[in-house]
Amino acid sequence: MKKWVRMTILSVVVIGAMLFTGSGGQMDDDQGHGSAGHADPVAPVLLALTVILASAKIGGELFERMHQPAVLGELIVGVVLGNLALAHSSWDFFGPLRTDTITVQWAFVVDNLARIGVILLLFEVGLESNVAEMRKVGLSSFLVAAVGIVAPFALGYLASDMFIKNVPAVILEMNPNFDISNIHMFIGATLCATSVGITARVFKDLGKIQINEAKIILGAAVIDDVLGLIILAVVAGIIVASETGVPMDLSSILMISGIAIGFLVGAIVLGLSVVPRLLKRIAVLKTQGVMLISALLFCFVFSYLANLAGLAAIVGAFAAGLILEEVHFTEFREKKHLHDLLSPVTTFLVPIFFVVMGVQVRLETFLDASVLGLALALTVAAFIGKQVCGLAVVEKDLDRLSVGLGMVPRGEVGLIFASIGKGLGVVDDAIFSGIVIMVIATTLITPPLLKFSLARAERRHAQ
Amino acid sequence: MKKWVRMTILSVVVIGAMLFTGSGGQMDDDQGHGSAGHADPVAPVLLALTVILASAKIGGELFERMHQPAVLGELIVGVVLGNLALAHSSWDFFGPLRTDTITVQWAFVVDNLARIGVILLLFEVGLESNVAEMRKVGLSSFLVAAVGIVAPFALGYLASDMFIKNVPAVILEMNPNFDISNIHMFIGATLCATSVGITARVFKDLGKIQINEAKIILGAAVIDDVLGLIILAVVAGIIVASETGVPMDLSSILMISGIAIGFLVGAIVLGLSVVPRLLKRIAVLKTQGVMLISALLFCFVFSYLANLAGLAAIVGAFAAGLILEEVHFTEFREKKHLHDLLSPVTTFLVPIFFVVMGVQVRLETFLDASVLGLALALTVAAFIGKQVCGLAVVEKDLDRLSVGLGMVPRGEVGLIFASIGKGLGVVDDAIFSGIVIMVIATTLITPPLLKFSLARAERRHAQ
Repeated sequence: MKKWVRMTILSVVVIGAMLFTGSGGQMDDDQGHGSAGHADPVAPVLLALTVILASAKIGGELFERMHQPAVLGELIVGVVLGNLALAHSSWDFFGPLRTDTITVQWAFVVDNLARIGVILLLFEVGLESNVAEMRKVGLSSFLVAAVGIVAPFALGYLASDMFIKNVPAVILEMNPNFDISNIHMFIGATLCATSVGITARVFKDLGKIQINEAKIILGAAVIDDVLGLIILAVVAGIIVASETGVPMDLSSILMISGIAIGFLVGAIVLGLSVVPRLLKRIAVLKTQGVMLISALLFCFVFSYLANLAGLAAIVGAFAAGLILEEVHFTEFREKKHLHDLLSPVTTFLVPIFFVVMGVQVRLETFLDASVLGLALALTVAAFIGKQVCGLAVVEKDLDRLSVGLGMVPRGEVGLIFASIGKGLGVVDDAIFSGIVIMVIATTLITPPLLKFSLARAERRHAQ
Repeated sequence: MKKWVRMTILSVVVIGAMLFTGSGGQMDDDQGHGSAGHADPVAPVLLALTVILASAKIGGELFERMHQPAVLGELIVGVVLGNLALAHSSWDFFGPLRTDTITVQWAFVVDNLARIGVILLLFEVGLESNVAEMRKVGLSSFLVAAVGIVAPFALGYLASDMFIKNVPAVILEMNPNFDISNIHMFIGATLCATSVGITARVFKDLGKIQINEAKIILGAAVIDDVLGLIILAVVAGIIVASETGVPMDLSSILMISGIAIGFLVGAIVLGLSVVPRLLKRIAVLKTQGVMLISALLFCFVFSYLANLAGLAAIVGAFAAGLILEEVHFTEFREKKHLHDLLSPVTTFLVPIFFVVMGVQVRLETFLDASVLGLALALTVAAFIGKQVCGLAVVEKDLDRLSVGLGMVPRGEVGLIFASIGKGLGVVDDAIFSGIVIMVIATTLITPPLLKFSLARAERRHAQ
């Protein structure tokens, strides 16, 4: 047997054993054992992190050996860890991470570490580019984003119209005059979402984050987030108006859009002039770690403000990365590259995000035949809708297929949209499951397809 | 005005402004705002981390400019942030971090990041030494630990006997036959605790973590943790026996001690033979980040197991660090030093621990005149009790004063002991406040005194 096969088997046994130690109390936050010793609340967190990180590395290694991106391996081991309860009902170790509202302490902590992980990933990706470079591909980014809103919306509406013929009983009970087109419209809006974490990670894994296709996708994802927010506000406004009879509140929609666009433009314009000067001042500090901490703080502040402005935190993190450059840090006493300081932190936190994302996949939803038709239709609509994007690229010589594929994953953004729909009362459990399957499918197929299309483009260029 | 004074004022204004944005909802986990946007639960965590890390760096910088260790600055800004409510009742931004049982999500996350921070600090400190080096100063470590248990216990008993003449009414109500010597005994046990985080950090800040004094203290702190656990088990056994009339369960105390000692000896002996071979196997993995992740996993697993064995998680982390050596990582594909990979992670997380420690200081306890007498007596007993330790050092030429000072801080270990006393019903609110003040005082005076004594020893050596 090959060395690494033996190692994998050994590791799986060890991880299994650790999970069982944990299930003996610690992972349930049951700290009330009678001993006189320390019962540190961090213990279950350490256990969960150990299992998650060990699995992430094994999954990444296995998939890389199969010539697949490591991130796919991390997602898949996450799916396995999260769905162990299907094999044996008492193996629901990661159950606390899979509920809509997390109530268990260690799960809060792991979930938040995952979120900080994806924020730092987008920050790191942003650092490898700058505003000027993004502006060069700006027209393509804008067109890709625009097409990536219109096409999925239209296709999503059609798919919904084909599969949902009657307003679900739950919704009718609450509102007898409910208009079925509200559902189609909302599903269309859900398909507009783009989650750029997966794509960014695949480009990074392949060492291609600097190519123009990556830049177009990243720019488009940022614009998409703004457009998606507006679409969602408009659709929610229409739905509320049709339910209550009160006409849509246009001014609030204008305000939501204004705040989001204002934040993005303001952050970048202000950032470009203020940040370098601010960093020059911070560089006089002598205490240890100022360089890394000030970079992290820029990232955190921008993410926080983006979230306040109604955008995804990762959009703020990416903007912060675009503004910051290695060059701003040359006056710091620590003669190091920011990249070398940031990379260990992301090495620690980023895999947590992708494993946790996999953990949240509920395989049982795939077994529900009644939603599979809708789910399949939505997935096809979601896939084709974003594929059309590729055609909007204005530059020649770029791989349109890769751009389209990079826009496909809906990830956590799609899930957020779906849960807003639940709150609005347009999405019942069956529709929700359909959307979730679409999100899972678009997220899982992207890494292998994108890797394939990028390799194909490279071969073609080489000829 | 000097540049850095202006910068500090500016930063304080910015941090204040951030706190006020946060208090408008986000920091209370109030995610239910009506907008259609993303409301990421990580947002309040990002805000808290920004305020904590920015304050930490400013505090560290100010105190370094005053020729004090940075860690003292981090503790003090923590005290300021935590006690803002004394200035204005609505400024209780960090209140959620100061409760016995944390109930707010962002506070869980920040508290756990702090705990991971101190675990990684002790791991990093352990990495700078190895088992052979520790064994060289082993006799001194053992004697220092032993004296550091006996002397504080005796002095604590006496101090308690002087100030507590009657069993508090609350305790008498629950148990009319309560023996007052139980209180003295428990207070004596509380004074045995040693929290080595502060000391390790001071030695690191001064670049002196490699000197023999540091090694003796670190070794003594590990042994102290084991002895403290045993003392606590014995005292708790006596108290429960005197309360219930059931004779003390010697076998369970033997088991607690056996598990703790067994873990430590077993982990180190097994670790020394297994870990290098295991790392050789892990080195064949090709996926990114294996070196850092495998080091972190060793640290997490050892910390987790130490905690299971009833010891502090940091004792496990330190043991993991002792076992691992840079030399084990030479076969890894990443040609980097483990230290360079670990240092950015600790730069991010360690200051969170010390600021959060400061945040938990309740200045109002100092205003309660009725406990101040007891508090002062306990502090003096705690200080002198550990000072005596220095005399137990067998090596010549070492600075006994520094060793004694390094053992003084009680930190979170003292607080854990005190809360166990609350659970046992031997510690009422007044005694608890007295212990808390002792913990605060021993923790805050250590950094400046230790810095002073180390500088004095260096001057003397140079002569």
